[in-house]
Amino acid sequence: MIRNINDVPMETIEMEGVKNASMAVMIGRSDGAPNFALRSITVEPGGYTPKHSHDFEHEVYVVEGSGTILLGEKMHDIKAGDVIYVEADLEHQFKAQGGELRFLCMVPAHRSCGEPTPGSEGGVS
Amino acid sequence: MIRNINDVPMETIEMEGVKNASMAVMIGRSDGAPNFALRSITVEPGGYTPKHSHDFEHEVYVVEGSGTILLGEKMHDIKAGDVIYVEADLEHQFKAQGGELRFLCMVPAHRSCGEPTPGSEGGVS
Repeated sequence: MIRNINDVPMETIEMEGVKNASMAVMIGRSDGAPNFALRSITVEPGGYTPKHSHDFEHEVYVVEGSGTILLGEKMHDIKAGDVIYVEADLEHQFKAQGGELRFLCMVPAHRSCGEPTPGSEGGVS
Repeated sequence: MIRNINDVPMETIEMEGVKNASMAVMIGRSDGAPNFALRSITVEPGGYTPKHSHDFEHEVYVVEGSGTILLGEKMHDIKAGDVIYVEADLEHQFKAQGGELRFLCMVPAHRSCGEPTPGSEGGVS
């Protein structure tokens, strides 16, 4: 299965505390992926993802653009080529600054209590 | 933990059937990642990864360059922005064509029989 991140429809993330961010699940459980899911996320200039934490980790790769990430109480600048590990239960928030921020965000297929991780399913919606 | 893929030392992959390929584990078990590892792989022009299969899947993102991937008996062109799912036990091989091929290759932290997946450890070597 090969899909280019420029060819997939992005869906607006409808969640409290989100502004101008969208997502596509590129590889998810519905593709047969048993262990983790790969999502493409775009944040428009001035937009942000929710400031939250959860019981599963993120592994992130910044594809293009720049912005910031809040990790716990510390803000960090991020740019293309950065790999970021967000451990479980750490509060975090991505913000786009200047241009559009695009990143890949990988999550485990199942969270610590065993049920499927939200946003790991994928497939046509 | 934030690290840029351009700032980490790449190590030559010493394995039968590999030509001019190198790897850096960007996030691995030694970073505390419990479920999957993110590796950066570079294949120099004309180089390739081994033609092999194993009992765990790959999730791949092509960062830059172009080349081919063999999936089972079928060859596919790949380019920057492509996301590829290589299911467990499927024979595969990456080849760089033209310029250097760079991609991220994610693997589960543990293979199907339970022990750590090779190349998922990371840390300073």
